[in-house]
Amino acid sequence: MRFAIQRDQLLQGVQDVMKAVTSRTTIPILTGIKIVATEEGVTLTGSDSDISIESFIPKEEDGKEIVEVKQTGAIVLQAKFFSEIVKKLPTDTVEIIVENHLQTVIRSGRSEFNLNGLDAEEYPHLPQVAEENVFQIPTDLLKSLVRQTVFAVSTSETRPILTGVNWKVENKELTCIATDSHRLALRKAKLQTETEESQSVVIPGKSLTELSKILDDTSEMVHIVITENQVLFKAKHLLFFSRLLEGNYPDTARLIPNESKTDVVVNTKEFLHAIDRASLLAREGRNNVVKFSTVEGSGVEISSNTPEIGKVVEEIQSQSIDGEDLKISFSAKYMMDALKALEGSEIQISFTGAMRPFVIRPMNDDSILQLILPVRTY
Amino acid sequence: MRFAIQRDQLLQGVQDVMKAVTSRTTIPILTGIKIVATEEGVTLTGSDSDISIESFIPKEEDGKEIVEVKQTGAIVLQAKFFSEIVKKLPTDTVEIIVENHLQTVIRSGRSEFNLNGLDAEEYPHLPQVAEENVFQIPTDLLKSLVRQTVFAVSTSETRPILTGVNWKVENKELTCIATDSHRLALRKAKLQTETEESQSVVIPGKSLTELSKILDDTSEMVHIVITENQVLFKAKHLLFFSRLLEGNYPDTARLIPNESKTDVVVNTKEFLHAIDRASLLAREGRNNVVKFSTVEGSGVEISSNTPEIGKVVEEIQSQSIDGEDLKISFSAKYMMDALKALEGSEIQISFTGAMRPFVIRPMNDDSILQLILPVRTY
Repeated sequence: MRFAIQRDQLLQGVQDVMKAVTSRTTIPILTGIKIVATEEGVTLTGSDSDISIESFIPKEEDGKEIVEVKQTGAIVLQAKFFSEIVKKLPTDTVEIIVENHLQTVIRSGRSEFNLNGLDAEEYPHLPQVAEENVFQIPTDLLKSLVRQTVFAVSTSETRPILTGVNWKVENKELTCIATDSHRLALRKAKLQTETEESQSVVIPGKSLTELSKILDDTSEMVHIVITENQVLFKAKHLLFFSRLLEGNYPDTARLIPNESKTDVVVNTKEFLHAIDRASLLAREGRNNVVKFSTVEGSGVEISSNTPEIGKVVEEIQSQSIDGEDLKISFSAKYMMDALKALEGSEIQISFTGAMRPFVIRPMNDDSILQLILPVRTY
Repeated sequence: MRFAIQRDQLLQGVQDVMKAVTSRTTIPILTGIKIVATEEGVTLTGSDSDISIESFIPKEEDGKEIVEVKQTGAIVLQAKFFSEIVKKLPTDTVEIIVENHLQTVIRSGRSEFNLNGLDAEEYPHLPQVAEENVFQIPTDLLKSLVRQTVFAVSTSETRPILTGVNWKVENKELTCIATDSHRLALRKAKLQTETEESQSVVIPGKSLTELSKILDDTSEMVHIVITENQVLFKAKHLLFFSRLLEGNYPDTARLIPNESKTDVVVNTKEFLHAIDRASLLAREGRNNVVKFSTVEGSGVEISSNTPEIGKVVEEIQSQSIDGEDLKISFSAKYMMDALKALEGSEIQISFTGAMRPFVIRPMNDDSILQLILPVRTY
C-alpha cells in the first residue's frame, strides 16, 4: 500500500472514526484504525463492536485531488498514535507506505514515522445491512431528535433496555422516546420514506450521542436503514453502524396523561434560571428536590430548604394559570434537563395532581413533550 | 450589616478570593469567605492559611456608585454556595443583609436566599506585614517572571524547598530561579526600589500560580513586600499574601556552565514541534526521552525509538552549528516546557558534552535561561 493524501481530510476522517474506538476492548485489533486504499480513494474504519464508523476519503472532490493512490492495499494502525501523529504532522500532504512485515512509514516534510502495523485481514468485517426500509431525515433534524430525547435514557444497567432510545416508525412518522422511569422525553418527526411498514427498535443512547458528535449541522439528508439487530446511518462519505438493544421497550403511551387539572404557562428561560437557583443549596443533598406552588395573582413560587445550609425562595410571574391551586415537588435536575431540551420562549406545564406525572410542552407545538414524575414531600 | 452592591463587581471580588479557598481544610471557618462592610466599601477575604487574598470593593469608582452600605458589619458565608449564588443572581444589584443569629439574606429581584452565616470574629487575622523593603514590578512583567520559572519547581515533597521559586533581590535586580534538580529555569528583571538591601526568599510555586491567575495583563505596578516568613503582593484593590518556604535554597549558580563546546541556533517553533512529534511514541514509556544529534551540513536530527510501537526521525535545519559534533539524549517534556517559556523566534542551545547540563537561551537576551540535565542513553 502506498498513497499520498491531504492531511486535513485525513485528520477529519481519523477523528470521525476515532469516536468508535475505545482502549477498553477485549479484541486487541479494535484499538486500531483500518486503512484501505483502493483506486477510488481511502477508507478508514473504527469500531468497538457496538458502534462501527466508516469514513471514505475520495480520490478527488470538487475537481481537487485529495488522494493519490500509488499502490492499493490495507493496514491497521494503533488509533491512539496514528491520530496524534496525523494531528501534528508539519506539511499539508502526508505519504503513507506499508513496507515489509506490516511496517508502515508515515512521511510529511522532514518528519518520518515508522509504525508497527497490524494485519488488516484480521480486522472484523462490518455488519451486512440489506437496504430495505430506508428512510431519510435532514441532518440537523436528526441531531435535534437525539438531543431532545437521549438525555432521558437510564444510566443504570438494571433495566438495560432503558439505556436506549425507542425509535418507532409508523404512518411515515418517527417517534423517539427515552425514559429512565422517573422522567420521559418524546419527540416526533415526519419522515421521507417509501415504506409503509411499521418498525420499533431501541438504539443505545451512547450510539446516538456519538452519532450526533460526528454529524455537522447541515440540512443534507441522512439515510437510515433499520434491520433486525443493526441500524445504519448513511451521511456523505460516512457510514455509522450501531447494534440495537434486544428486548421489549415498555409501552409508554399509557404513562402520558391526556387531561389536566392545573395548566401553567411561563417564560422558559426565566423558569429555568429560577429552578437553577432554587436548587443551588439542595444539590448537596441526596435528591436535589425543589418545591413548586401556585400563588395567588397568577404567579409561581419555587423554593427549597436545606436546614444546615439555608433556604431559597424564587417567585416568577406566569403568563397564565388555569385550574386548581397546586403544591408539588420534583427533581430540579430533571426539570432543567427537560427545559433545556425544549424549544420556544414559552412553555406550558400541565399537572393532574401533586402525585401524578406532569407534562411540559412548548406552546403550540405537538411534536415534543417532556414528562416528569413528582417526588413526595408535601 | 446591610448593603446593596453591583453584582458584577461582587462576582469579580468573590472569584478572586475564591482562589485561596479550599474545601480540604482542617479549619472549618476557612471554607467561608469573610465579608466586611465599612463606610468605605466592602472587603472580601479568602484563605487556606498558606495563601490569603483580600479584595476591596470601594463605595464608588469613576464617579459611579458600586456599594451602598446601610449598616456596617461583618459575616462569613460558605464560599462554595455564596460564589455560585452570586454568579446566578438575576438582577444587576444585590442586597445582603445579616439578620439575627448570623442569618444572612441575599436578595436580587424576586430571588431570595437565606444562608446560615458564621461569626466573622472567629475568622483568622491576616498576617501583619511591615512595609519595609518594598519594590515594584509592572503586572505583566510579574506574570512573565512567574510563567517562565514556576513550571520547573519540583512536584515532589522529598525536598520541600524545591517546590518553591527562589526570589533573590540584589543590586536593584530580581532573579527568579526554579529547579526540580533535573532542570532549572532562571529569569532576571530590573526593579524599581529604593532599598539597597539584598534578600533571598523561597515562594511556594502554588502561590505564584494562583497569583498569576488573579492578575490582569496590565502595566500597572504591583507592590511587593517581603518579610521573614511572608510575601505580600499589592495590586489595585487586591492584597495577596503567601507564606514563604523555610530552609536554604541550594546554590544554583555553580550548576550553570559558563563555557560551551557545541552551540546550535534553531527556530524555536520548528524545534518545539519536532520535539513534540519525536516524543509522541515515547510518551508511553517511563521516561519520554528523545535523542538529539548534529548532522553534517548544518542540520539537527531528533529521534526516538519505542520498539513495540515504532520509531520517529525528525530533521530540522539549524541557523548555525558551531563546535564539536554531538549526540545527546534528554527528556522531551523538559525541553518542550523550556521552549514554551522562552520568548523570541530563535534560540541558542549551548552544550558542553553529552553528559553535562546544557543551556537554552533566546538570541540576544541575557535575562532568561533554561537548563536541562541530559539522560544517559548513548
